[in-house]
Amino acid sequence: MTKSTVDLTIVGSIGIDTIETPVEKKEEILGGSVSYACAAASFFAHTGMVGVVGTDFPQEFLETWKNMSIDLEGLQIVEGKTFRWSGVYEENMDNRRTLSTELNVFETFSPELPEDYREAPYLFLGNIHPALQLHVLEQVRNPEFILIDTMDLWINIDKEDLVKVIGKCHMLTLNESEAQLFTGEHTLGQAARKLLELGPEYVLIKKGGNGSTLFTRADTFLLHAYPLESFKDPTGAGDTFAGGFMGALAASGRTDKEAIRQAMVYGSIVASFGVEEFSLDRLKQLDRDQIENRVETFKAMCRL
Amino acid sequence: MTKSTVDLTIVGSIGIDTIETPVEKKEEILGGSVSYACAAASFFAHTGMVGVVGTDFPQEFLETWKNMSIDLEGLQIVEGKTFRWSGVYEENMDNRRTLSTELNVFETFSPELPEDYREAPYLFLGNIHPALQLHVLEQVRNPEFILIDTMDLWINIDKEDLVKVIGKCHMLTLNESEAQLFTGEHTLGQAARKLLELGPEYVLIKKGGNGSTLFTRADTFLLHAYPLESFKDPTGAGDTFAGGFMGALAASGRTDKEAIRQAMVYGSIVASFGVEEFSLDRLKQLDRDQIENRVETFKAMCRL
Repeated sequence: MTKSTVDLTIVGSIGIDTIETPVEKKEEILGGSVSYACAAASFFAHTGMVGVVGTDFPQEFLETWKNMSIDLEGLQIVEGKTFRWSGVYEENMDNRRTLSTELNVFETFSPELPEDYREAPYLFLGNIHPALQLHVLEQVRNPEFILIDTMDLWINIDKEDLVKVIGKCHMLTLNESEAQLFTGEHTLGQAARKLLELGPEYVLIKKGGNGSTLFTRADTFLLHAYPLESFKDPTGAGDTFAGGFMGALAASGRTDKEAIRQAMVYGSIVASFGVEEFSLDRLKQLDRDQIENRVETFKAMCRL
Repeated sequence: MTKSTVDLTIVGSIGIDTIETPVEKKEEILGGSVSYACAAASFFAHTGMVGVVGTDFPQEFLETWKNMSIDLEGLQIVEGKTFRWSGVYEENMDNRRTLSTELNVFETFSPELPEDYREAPYLFLGNIHPALQLHVLEQVRNPEFILIDTMDLWINIDKEDLVKVIGKCHMLTLNESEAQLFTGEHTLGQAARKLLELGPEYVLIKKGGNGSTLFTRADTFLLHAYPLESFKDPTGAGDTFAGGFMGALAASGRTDKEAIRQAMVYGSIVASFGVEEFSLDRLKQLDRDQIENRVETFKAMCRL
């Protein structure tokens, strides 16, 4: 068995986004779950990206990833246009409405992992069709820790495949509303118990600005979100959190509960930086010292 | 100066409530801010109640308070009917609608503090008209720590008196939506900064099931809510939290930041018990060991 050159493989969507908030509108910016997640993970671990873009994909966006030392061997560049998404945030940023979605090259995407990605000990299955997530699992060789994310769309249209892939993962992450939709349970504890029955050891429920909660069969871990005075764009915050978490976990080389709690703190803090600007604009200016400083500030805020 | 026989004085409303949740309806049960707050405080400190009831007030409710060792010297029993309130919780308990309010004897209530209550080192001004809260402040002799609560009604109709009384208190507590209404700011940090400018050293913002945040001019303290698998009635949860907090703070004999953080944990945990049943039904069965056990469980859930 050859030594993997990446510690962490991340699979997901890549999009060119147009986003409108109550304050400003940004057109054709870099987005997508794997873009946010790899950027966040790159502060901690050597991360390989699996995704697809079209031949129209700006060189500048590729440079952004390269400058963050993200491994792009698993990136497919396919004849055609890149996936596009546009959305608008309503007042208070509490609700997001999708204005348009153009799948383009994403429609026929089939994630194929480079040989060395298959050996990576950590794997994050970002939000794509559960059948594609299953296809990734067929290629990897016994990763130590697999995190899976999903969305309401797949819960509604392909729960069967989704249940199958969740059963093969160590951790499932969902938004609060997705956990409720999936299980029909209102309280997080009850929803989490049903989700744990599907097989994963950990269920991580994201509550946006209200933090996140990690459930196992034995216990619960409560994590605050870092309180921001203001933020510009919450798009990708969940992917940034998950990517930062997986990067920090991969860097620890561990998969135990303690390591998971610490990695969640890092994921949450990187996400708090990410939303300060659109796209990867804040993350590409961020360094490890700034992360560590905010982690310390945050821990002082939470000390009981 | 005589030694005060109560450690903590609490002023507020007393009501006979009719409450409907998606699951059940309870008629003519014991409610009101001072009832919840004194019950919660009674686990920690000798607490004096200042409020008013009518001659129709059931003996059984008086017994409930007496069994919790609440001092009732400040309770006025006035010819007429007790304040009544009825409300309904919509699906998910997220929204509450008031169905009816009958002020009755509460309409002409003027809080008068027994001599020894005026010397109590801790004072909680529960949610009543700010002019009445000011009237209480005229009677007390330099308490070490004053907490004030209020509601959207007073923010809307008598902000002037409210600002005046807040300026004389050490800590202000508000719901998230009330803090936004009061200041016009959306993020809690910005709202809290404006509220701190009114004079108090501490601003405690309650976020229901999402916990609470304490702001000072120098720092921020984040506190989770204890995660409940289910609950029956959130009425009075904020008053229970504030009462438990003030009781625990009074018991500590301190007013510093560390003591305040610890007291917030106790307030939050007592509130988590309170909502498990209607009215004081859970609190009157509760003991200090159960509180301490849940505090330990909670701290383990929050450990970073």
